[in-house]
Parts: sequence; C-alpha cells; structure tokens
Amino acid sequence: MTEPLQTGATIGILGGGQLGRMLSVAAARLGFRTHVFEPGANPPAADVAHAVTTASYDDHSALTAFANACDVVTFEFENIPTEALDVVEAITPIRPGREALRISQDRLMEKTYLSDLGLQVAPFADVTDAATLEAAVAEIGTPAILKTRRFGYDGKGQLRLKGGEDLAATWAEMGGAPCVLEGFVDFTAEISVIAARSATGEVACFDPGENVHRDGILHTTTVPARISNAQRTDAVLLAGRVLNALDYVGVMGVELFVTPQGLIVNEIAPRVHNSGHWTQNGCTVDQFEQHIRAVAGWPLGDGQRYADVVMTNLIGNDMDRVPDLARARDTALHLYGKAEVKAGRKMGHVNQIIRG
Amino acid sequence: MTEPLQTGATIGILGGGQLGRMLSVAAARLGFRTHVFEPGANPPAADVAHAVTTASYDDHSALTAFANACDVVTFEFENIPTEALDVVEAITPIRPGREALRISQDRLMEKTYLSDLGLQVAPFADVTDAATLEAAVAEIGTPAILKTRRFGYDGKGQLRLKGGEDLAATWAEMGGAPCVLEGFVDFTAEISVIAARSATGEVACFDPGENVHRDGILHTTTVPARISNAQRTDAVLLAGRVLNALDYVGVMGVELFVTPQGLIVNEIAPRVHNSGHWTQNGCTVDQFEQHIRAVAGWPLGDGQRYADVVMTNLIGNDMDRVPDLARARDTALHLYGKAEVKAGRKMGHVNQIIRG
Repeated sequence: MTEPLQTGATIGILGGGQLGRMLSVAAARLGFRTHVFEPGANPPAADVAHAVTTASYDDHSALTAFANACDVVTFEFENIPTEALDVVEAITPIRPGREALRISQDRLMEKTYLSDLGLQVAPFADVTDAATLEAAVAEIGTPAILKTRRFGYDGKGQLRLKGGEDLAATWAEMGGAPCVLEGFVDFTAEISVIAARSATGEVACFDPGENVHRDGILHTTTVPARISNAQRTDAVLLAGRVLNALDYVGVMGVELFVTPQGLIVNEIAPRVHNSGHWTQNGCTVDQFEQHIRAVAGWPLGDGQRYADVVMTNLIGNDMDRVPDLARARDTALHLYGKAEVKAGRKMGHVNQIIRG
Repeated sequence: MTEPLQTGATIGILGGGQLGRMLSVAAARLGFRTHVFEPGANPPAADVAHAVTTASYDDHSALTAFANACDVVTFEFENIPTEALDVVEAITPIRPGREALRISQDRLMEKTYLSDLGLQVAPFADVTDAATLEAAVAEIGTPAILKTRRFGYDGKGQLRLKGGEDLAATWAEMGGAPCVLEGFVDFTAEISVIAARSATGEVACFDPGENVHRDGILHTTTVPARISNAQRTDAVLLAGRVLNALDYVGVMGVELFVTPQGLIVNEIAPRVHNSGHWTQNGCTVDQFEQHIRAVAGWPLGDGQRYADVVMTNLIGNDMDRVPDLARARDTALHLYGKAEVKAGRKMGHVNQIIRG
C-alpha cells in the first residue's frame, strides 16, 4: 500500500467504542467510508459508520469478509487478539504496524523496549509467581504497583503495594496472570504527547497536555501543560524517537511523568488517546483526522494549537451536567451516544476553550 | 414535543446529500442517532447515519416506518413533496415547521411573504403564460430573471432576459411551469445570515458572510463580510424577524443583497446553508450543531466567530486541488465522499482560517 487512498475508499476499524466513533467521523470528513468490526451490539461507532460487522475476534470468516471489504485496517484499542490480526493482515494492510501492538500489549515488553531505546522508565521487574514477586519487591521497594502484563486499562488489573503485605496472598489475588512490578515515580506532573507519523516518515506532535486522573481514570487534560520549553522539546523528541523506531504509521499517545530527573515514560498507546480529545477544539486538524490521514497514506495536517483548552471527561453521572454545559460559552460537548449511564463509564467529554 | 431529546434519541433527516451528512455528524457529536431517508442509492449522508431508508418520497409505507423510527424529523432541502411531509407529520414532529417549507418552496409566495413582513425584495411579478410575461417585462423592465416558482436551485430553472427577446419563445423554453419574473438588483455585495431559533424562541445569528458565485453556484463565502456595523445589525435583525414570524425552529439561510437603498432579501432557505460551512472552522458550535440543537429542543450553542474564514467550494475537478490543500497550513478540508466527479457537482469544501 503506497498510494494515498482516494475519496470513497474504505477504512476498517477494529473496535467500536468512542475512539472508533470519532475516528469514523474524521474519516468521513476526508471523504472515506468506515467499516467497524466490534463484538458488542450497538457500539458507539456504529452510529457513524458506513458498515458494521458484529462478530467476535475469533470468528475468522467474519474477519476475512471484513478485511476484504476494507482498503486499510486500523484499530481503536490495543488488546486485539494476535490471531485476529493475522487473519486480517493476510488480506489487508494494518496501520499502525503489528510491532507497536505487540509491544504495547505487554507491559513488560513495552518497558523493556523503551528502556532499550535509551528512554527512562519507572523501575520494573518481571513477576511470574510469589517468589519472583518477593524478589521484585526486595529489589524495587515499596510503594509499588503490581500490574498484569496484558489487558489492563483505566486502572484495571492493578494492585498497589504499600509495603508489609502478605505477598503470597497478593500474588493469588492477581489470579496467576503474568505481571510486572513497577516502582513508584515521584513526579510533579503527568503529561502526554499525542504524536503522529505519516507513511512517508513525517512526524508531527500536538502540544503536550497535562493530565489529572481520578480513581484511575483520566479526569482532565489541560493544554498547554505547565512545563518549560526545554521539557516540551524533550517530550516531543522522545515521542518522535519511539515512532521512528517502530516505523509507526498513525497517532500514538505517549504518557510521561515530569520529574526532577527528566521525563519518564509511563506508557505508550498505539492509537488515538483520551488525552488528545482537546485537539478537536484547539487545532485545525485533530488527533482523529491526523490518524486517518496517516493510515490513508495522506500527508499530516496542521495540528498547531490555536487556543488553550481544558478537556474534562464526562463519566457516569457527570451526564447530569450536560444541560448546563450545553448553555456555556466557549464550551464544546462531545457525547458518545451511550444510552445506559454506568458508574465509571466514559459517556462523553467537554472541551472548555480559552482564547487568547 | 416539549422536552429536550435525550442521548440515544433518533433524529430523522429527509434527504441524504452533503448537508444531511454534516447534520448527521453534528447529531452524533451530541449523542443522537440519525435515520436518513433518501431515494438515491449510496447517498453521502448514509456513510455517517445510524440507519438509512432508500425509498421514494411517494412510498407511504416507507415514510411511515421512517417516521415511526424517529423522535423528530428534519430535512436538508426544501423541495420535499407536501404529501410526504403529511405522512411523516401525522406520526412525528417536523422541525423547522411546515409553514417555512410551504413558503420557501414557492418563489412567488416567498417574495410576497417577505414583502408583507415589511422587508425589501427585488421587484417581482407573477408569470403564468406568455401574456403575463409580456406584462411583467413591461412593468419591471430588463435586465430581469425569469425563474420557475418551484424546484429551482444553483441557477437551475432560470433564464436571464437582457431585453429584446422573443417572449413567446422564452416562455416556451420554461416548459409551461409557473414562473416569477424578478427585476435585477444593483448590489455592492451579496451576504448571507445563518440564523438559528430554538424551540423556546431564542434567536442567534452567525456573523454574516459575503458570497461570491460562479456559474450560478456558490464559489466562496468570506467572513467577516465587508459591511458596516449598521448593516450587520440590520441583517441580523431582519433574519430574526423572519424566524420569529414563522415561529421557526432550526437554522435558516437568509441571502441578502447589500445596496445603497439598504438590504434586499434575495431568498431564504429553511435549512443549513452552503454559505454557513465556514462555521465549522470559525465557531465553537457550527451551523449543523446549531440546527440539531434547535430541532432536539436543546438551547442554542456558542456560535460566536473566533477567526476569519474563507470557505471555498470544491466543485467537479476542483478535487484535483485536494493533495495540495491537504498540506496547507490553517486549512480544513471537508469532503463529501462522492466517488464520481462531475462538472458542477459539489464534491467538498475547504475552509481557510485566518487567525487574529
């Protein structure tokens, strides 16, 4: 796949959540159709997709038909079974590439990869049983966080160790899943860089945003982040190094801790990222369109920030705020169309724009 | 229908062109689903709609099923057969109301209505045959434009009279359709006001844009229009008067001629309007979302202009410019996904943003 996609071409999206929904809208803005593959019924992305396949990731015939209907395939989350990707990739190119997925699907591999690239990461150790957990705690100390190597997100699959725990019981609580123990990082801020790389190797990063979490879920992203120009440059160069090393095509979210010892990479997400939602109201071309451009073989667009923005996630009953937010000045609502409000469920987000 | 629509509600859209497409995206942004009704296959709006009905406007059972599936119905063009609207309205509310449609579907009725409201319009006369055409030319003079009363758009169904024509032949050329003869207006600029009115009677207008046509089709809209503050106020008040008189709910495009004798209303369009596409990159809430908000019984959003914008339509082979436009700074592309390029066909538009 070397030529840019033409108007009317179809971009496949694995996963039908809100990220797929906003990717689909961005694809439509550039004249593309989308085909969403999602196991769950009535996913948010289906409301704005040209076609939807409702099937599980082990349904090889559905995956084959899906791949045949698409000119290129991308994804909105990283925990896609490898076998499903094999089926798709035998037919249609997958962007970003498999390598980024392989690495980001596994916390141990990810930390090892980033560390080998010369980037700072939190102290970490492989944990495969109660004995290696004992050894890891002895090496890294507490406080620390025990995380499953795979399938964790929004604070799921994580246990905090304060010290003094019965480590055999702790290990049992993780249910036998391979884990990594991460040392605590003493940071002044958590920022993220939303970085994009085109098929021709052009790299562009959005201005770093500063993140605040609540209950393990992103609460707000504020741009600009309160960091120095030198830190901003470091963050952008660091993100570019990761994208180039992976020969990455698309948008990646790179979460960083700001510390007196420099920037420490927390994690990378090989997809559009919640902390990049501010770009919808702060840039001419947002993270979703930037990803679609890259995946479609187009040049990257103008992602320069033209306003300060505070993005706030609307989680669960935060939806009660919508009537007031709908009346507010300089306020853009983005709702995901999820009918059922649940505690901890991301229902939408709101961008508060501060113009200069 | 008095309560605001909730997340997950369905908005029906009669017509599946690019206006329906952009309305559908705006609806999704607020958490609504859309159901598009369109006779043609593969319409642009279908790529971003939750559901699509492909049926003609005289298929009453399809219209009934469509209306039953929707919480409210709107439209993206004004030439919808009255009987189709009757079928829908018996089941589901239509916004904006029928009165605006009835008037704007007929140039003679529209000019009479606006004139009766105390607004200035071009000199006009009813033409029903060769004899009334003779009389109309004698009264209004030439140059003048003979237009069919119904179903004209983008310069179609129009003939220019320079004077000296064989009026019997001219009349024959119009094929017997009832017409209106309009006198030429000597204007310094054509502007349009994109005006919105909510279900509670709140009115908000976008900043007037200045339009340039080519071959009878809108070429560019530039904001701000080069008009005085007094003219801007006049334009906005005038648009508000039309919306209030019609008890209108939704967005209306009001085209005005700027003349030394004041503003003369060219025409009104009871829908989102091509000359309002600049709002996508010049306002926090664009014309499409403003229309959806009104139709859904929501408050209007913040439509204040934050940048200067030049909107240029991409017509036919203008699509050849897309690769260059895709690389340009401060430039937002909006393509409609129409696979086949035809002369005179609106394929997309581009917003060039000039920041202060």
